[in-house]
Amino acid sequence: MPENREVTIYDIAKHLNISAATVSRGLKNNPMINKNTRKKIADAAKQLGYQSNTFASSLRSKHTHTLGVLVPRLNSYFMSSVLAGMENAANRHGYNLIIAQSLEDAEKEKLNAETMFNKRVDGLLISLSYNTQHINHLEPFFKRKIPVVFFDRVYPHNESTSIVINNYGAAYNITQHLIEQGCRRIMHLGGNVLRNVYKDRLDGYRQALNDNRLPVIQQLYLTSNLSEQAGIEAARYILDMAPDDRPDAVFSANDTAAVYCMLTLKAAGIRIPEDIAFAGFNNDPISKVIEPNLTTVDYSGDTVGNTAVTNLINHLKGDSNLYITNSITLRSDLVIRASSLKKQIARN
Amino acid sequence: MPENREVTIYDIAKHLNISAATVSRGLKNNPMINKNTRKKIADAAKQLGYQSNTFASSLRSKHTHTLGVLVPRLNSYFMSSVLAGMENAANRHGYNLIIAQSLEDAEKEKLNAETMFNKRVDGLLISLSYNTQHINHLEPFFKRKIPVVFFDRVYPHNESTSIVINNYGAAYNITQHLIEQGCRRIMHLGGNVLRNVYKDRLDGYRQALNDNRLPVIQQLYLTSNLSEQAGIEAARYILDMAPDDRPDAVFSANDTAAVYCMLTLKAAGIRIPEDIAFAGFNNDPISKVIEPNLTTVDYSGDTVGNTAVTNLINHLKGDSNLYITNSITLRSDLVIRASSLKKQIARN
Repeated sequence: MPENREVTIYDIAKHLNISAATVSRGLKNNPMINKNTRKKIADAAKQLGYQSNTFASSLRSKHTHTLGVLVPRLNSYFMSSVLAGMENAANRHGYNLIIAQSLEDAEKEKLNAETMFNKRVDGLLISLSYNTQHINHLEPFFKRKIPVVFFDRVYPHNESTSIVINNYGAAYNITQHLIEQGCRRIMHLGGNVLRNVYKDRLDGYRQALNDNRLPVIQQLYLTSNLSEQAGIEAARYILDMAPDDRPDAVFSANDTAAVYCMLTLKAAGIRIPEDIAFAGFNNDPISKVIEPNLTTVDYSGDTVGNTAVTNLINHLKGDSNLYITNSITLRSDLVIRASSLKKQIARN
Repeated sequence: MPENREVTIYDIAKHLNISAATVSRGLKNNPMINKNTRKKIADAAKQLGYQSNTFASSLRSKHTHTLGVLVPRLNSYFMSSVLAGMENAANRHGYNLIIAQSLEDAEKEKLNAETMFNKRVDGLLISLSYNTQHINHLEPFFKRKIPVVFFDRVYPHNESTSIVINNYGAAYNITQHLIEQGCRRIMHLGGNVLRNVYKDRLDGYRQALNDNRLPVIQQLYLTSNLSEQAGIEAARYILDMAPDDRPDAVFSANDTAAVYCMLTLKAAGIRIPEDIAFAGFNNDPISKVIEPNLTTVDYSGDTVGNTAVTNLINHLKGDSNLYITNSITLRSDLVIRASSLKKQIARN
């Protein structure tokens, strides 16, 4: 037979000289069929290249055992950890992941959501793009009761669960830590406040200043996409300030901008933390390599991914109901390293 | 109607008070149907939550427009860049990616390959696990003429294409560069030589030594999984050597081991590059953050992913034939940074 023709149960039956009905039962592991025969059938199926008809049976059952994952960018350390955690959980439960990235573009996010819908994913896991304004593009999922789980960059919605960390609390704590180190003019490098993660981090920072009766200085708040380049530009902005106007600490909403700001300031002779203390967010690998090592917030992408998928699958299996869970907040840790330890340096 | 019932063309027809045949033609964008009517049909389909039947039509056409991607680990910087490049190319051609990770385990790789096969992917993209010994688990794909593209960690096979860089040449060049900087006792931190990438880097290193009539010293070759911990242990190994036996340079087969080896040696007072010069491989973000910055080999994961998917899809579309392409070698660049520049330091 030509090699690329589909192998059927009839081919297996012919090969073993038994009936197609026996093959069919054997492939379903029906105990009516003798164990040895079942083994023979399984071996022949493998040898001949038989593909079990998950595809047709999906069509019948209306379940594809496939989850859609829609992320802003695949190539970030955090997102790759999230994906690793998702794949682990999905694999354990016999689900597959289809992935797509919006490249931080709302329009591409919309097109990707349409594709996922037409691919009939059993559920959708989504972290929103930088400039997504609304979630009308997810309406088809809500209408058809296909569960949607938001993670990290989330959107309030009555029938979806969000997996987040307490961004507000983490930012509050890291700002409080800088204040305890004696910092009074703390700059914040923030992202787009359309996204909860950046809005909450900004709010936590401001609240900590307020609670310590420190002024919120507009000049010390920069927003950007928090890229390497944005970190370099923030450093230039600081260097252009009159020395007395400069911040004595920088809290960046991610590690990348913090690290590239530090490198640029160090090259200009600024001492860290003596002149300017630093704190970032994410605990990326670069935060442990920069000197001095960067104080940051650690939260496990792996756990975010694992939790998102596990909750989605439990819902699909009927073991729990996502629609009554509004949000799941995961733990994060303040990791204090040398970049913010002004007092210790002063004591030495 | 109940919200989770499947919406059919009959629902759309009823909603618009036109015939189901008109709806069917309109959804296929048949020019026989008036343009305004087509728009009305498309709008109603969206509003009612109609899912185009890609699923059933896949079953008819035997194509799923889905590619399987099987990688050792999702959470590495290189692999996340590869995935980003793959998603870009797949998305552009209307293909989706199903992903799975072997977690460096041959057995899990085998199970993942089976799942991909039964999910009826149109093609498979695979980078082998650390300890995969053979590719018998890919036989079902070869039998059914489902094209397989290997990338990065590849396996010689007559009917598959491999996407690689010239690992041998890159390792040769970086070793030659260290020799030109005056290094004579160059240590190599290598990976499992079962995998082409590590075997070829080792061979390139050795050939450069031979061509410069330098001895290949067994004591200066360590193999490991090239993790952070492996880098730290390599540093301890060096520190345990008598000072005269120590290497004057280290060429590591990845950046992670190089960087953690550097950090540990620096903490022990070893000067880089004056006492020991360093070179890595991959151009990971940490290589630009470590001080001194790490000399390394840059090759774009994005390009690897893009090339692998584009070639696979061109084959599936009949535009080209993968089976006659044995391998595609992509360009890599030697990136020289301060960690290896002994001579410049000597001159200053």
